[in-house]
Amino acid sequence: MTQNSLRETVRVDLGDRSYDIVIGPGLIAEAGAQIAAREPGIRCAVVTDRNVAAAHLDALLGSLAASGIEAAPLVLEPGEKTKRFDELVHVCDHVLGARLERGDAVLALGGGVIGDLSGFAAGIVRRGMGFIQVPTSLLAQVDSSVGGKTGINSSHGKNLIGVFHQPDLVLADTDVLDTLPIREFRAGYAEVAKYGLIDRPEFFAWLEKNWRDVFSGGEARIRAIATGCQAKADAVAADEREHGSRALLNLGHTFGHALEAATDYDGRRLVHGEGVAIGMVLAHEFSARMNLASPDDARRVGHHLREVGLPTVMSDIEGELPPTDILMKHIAQDKKVRRGALTFVLTRGIGQSFVADDVPADEVFRFLEEKRAS
Amino acid sequence: MTQNSLRETVRVDLGDRSYDIVIGPGLIAEAGAQIAAREPGIRCAVVTDRNVAAAHLDALLGSLAASGIEAAPLVLEPGEKTKRFDELVHVCDHVLGARLERGDAVLALGGGVIGDLSGFAAGIVRRGMGFIQVPTSLLAQVDSSVGGKTGINSSHGKNLIGVFHQPDLVLADTDVLDTLPIREFRAGYAEVAKYGLIDRPEFFAWLEKNWRDVFSGGEARIRAIATGCQAKADAVAADEREHGSRALLNLGHTFGHALEAATDYDGRRLVHGEGVAIGMVLAHEFSARMNLASPDDARRVGHHLREVGLPTVMSDIEGELPPTDILMKHIAQDKKVRRGALTFVLTRGIGQSFVADDVPADEVFRFLEEKRAS
Repeated sequence: MTQNSLRETVRVDLGDRSYDIVIGPGLIAEAGAQIAAREPGIRCAVVTDRNVAAAHLDALLGSLAASGIEAAPLVLEPGEKTKRFDELVHVCDHVLGARLERGDAVLALGGGVIGDLSGFAAGIVRRGMGFIQVPTSLLAQVDSSVGGKTGINSSHGKNLIGVFHQPDLVLADTDVLDTLPIREFRAGYAEVAKYGLIDRPEFFAWLEKNWRDVFSGGEARIRAIATGCQAKADAVAADEREHGSRALLNLGHTFGHALEAATDYDGRRLVHGEGVAIGMVLAHEFSARMNLASPDDARRVGHHLREVGLPTVMSDIEGELPPTDILMKHIAQDKKVRRGALTFVLTRGIGQSFVADDVPADEVFRFLEEKRAS
Repeated sequence: MTQNSLRETVRVDLGDRSYDIVIGPGLIAEAGAQIAAREPGIRCAVVTDRNVAAAHLDALLGSLAASGIEAAPLVLEPGEKTKRFDELVHVCDHVLGARLERGDAVLALGGGVIGDLSGFAAGIVRRGMGFIQVPTSLLAQVDSSVGGKTGINSSHGKNLIGVFHQPDLVLADTDVLDTLPIREFRAGYAEVAKYGLIDRPEFFAWLEKNWRDVFSGGEARIRAIATGCQAKADAVAADEREHGSRALLNLGHTFGHALEAATDYDGRRLVHGEGVAIGMVLAHEFSARMNLASPDDARRVGHHLREVGLPTVMSDIEGELPPTDILMKHIAQDKKVRRGALTFVLTRGIGQSFVADDVPADEVFRFLEEKRAS
């Protein structure tokens, strides 16, 4: 299984919280060896969901056992609804019940939901214990497993409760992505493209040419994932706690989160990456409307995302959306708001994003009213 | 009310997380002015308990209002049982419902329970927001409000879930201590004496002479509190996340926590500081038994704590204690355990504490069996 020639390692540089992201095929089968080499004597609570467990849990537990690593598995229900306080308590109780200590680890085997929830538990049990990520979705590999953001949702909004807690190791097995539904792979791809749109125009151009190879696997996929991880790692290293530049990673997310909230986080209608895809197109169109960027750039972004099969306009979402004033409420509750002023990531063109913290709410309202009517 | 001549400020030096502890009379009445001067435009969620609210909430809210600070109060039930997940959710919902942002603050008005719970909420809402402490017990003023440890209890043990989250400001009003039941003041005094026993033998000797003045108020009380805060601030600055030397602050705590657990955290039988008092005497006696310290030191510690009215032996606890093997289980579950080896703070004499991470469990068992029989 191991093909070391096809393996890349991205270092996330955060002083004494630095860690490696290892990317390549066959890494679940090799997880035990990778972990034992770095953390001899460690024990793990393995947290996963029912779907991922069916496909990968036996392989992971076998690999851990073969390296002498004790593991206590916990299988949760799949889906965004699992990111809630009850399940956080469930994970914490499981970890404490397994008598794990500060130097042991919570191991998250799954997508963003499992990673965010498990990382939060790892961040608060004994005021912070070890954390290992084995992300099984493209979104988790290029986004949520890099940077230490963990959390759960609240009735007031998404990800409003959580901590910053860096993992000790991330193992991104690129083979597992072949078992993903294509819709989920596409949703993750939106975040890959985002790194190009933020500040890597040449990466976006490379994706426009090579996206079919990224979807089919092999070296192009590894390169895309490694570039995405590196982009996020750079942003996180520059601004670990999101006081400034890291906010650029929210390109497309303020609109995207509002659309997710407006569809009640119902994954049948809209998943996170799809919201981000529509949100990125909206951010480029809004930037054009504010005379910051050319409308051609917005069209180019829309064209590429549509070509890979992502939704790019609000009318692509099935069912009815709530009125615009409700969308605006979701935007205002988004945590990138400071003392009432609307903060958005806007752009001056492909790869030229910037944080605008003085966006007039009424302009956004009128823009959304027009876009949904068109 | 303001008597600036009787005011001391202790700086907790933690880089960009540094903050001031202001100590003196009349600080609740002056809270609005103190906060507004440092954090213009801030809004607060004020978290307190029913007992403290009856005595101090109106004065605090009046002071905040007079300085133009919006405040949303939340009054919880008093007692250790409030440090649980349900109440954490309650506080988080209150803070989000008040639409506070990252730059706003949770203000804890109360003792250790309110401080630990509110600080935990401040540490996880929006992945960390502002936190202000107005501690109203001696224990909270000299211990829990310094150092950023926050948390709740779990069915597996005390303080097993939490985060490190430093406050932005601590206002320790020494007048409010006059409204405390004497038993609670004494319990806090155990932690004051602890700082002398760890590494300030001259402070312990000063307390032996001046403890009556500390109890009656005025300058001696301010000096004792400021010395305690400074001692803890030094320990925290040297080791913010308790990887090493900060563990000295646990002098008396491993035995103390086990006794608290053994009495089911029933404050009628034993409160935290009383557990620490008995635990400190046990730590000195166990050190003597291990030929590390003179039995005279253990007798001196026991004499002083008994003189101020604290319990100093296990038989001072009302009702029956569980068998020694249950006590040992509580000791092993204490979070200062690493990979099975028992870690204790032991001593070579008054003011000469050290961390021993290789204490044989069977010696501790035999020692406890003897002590409870005596």
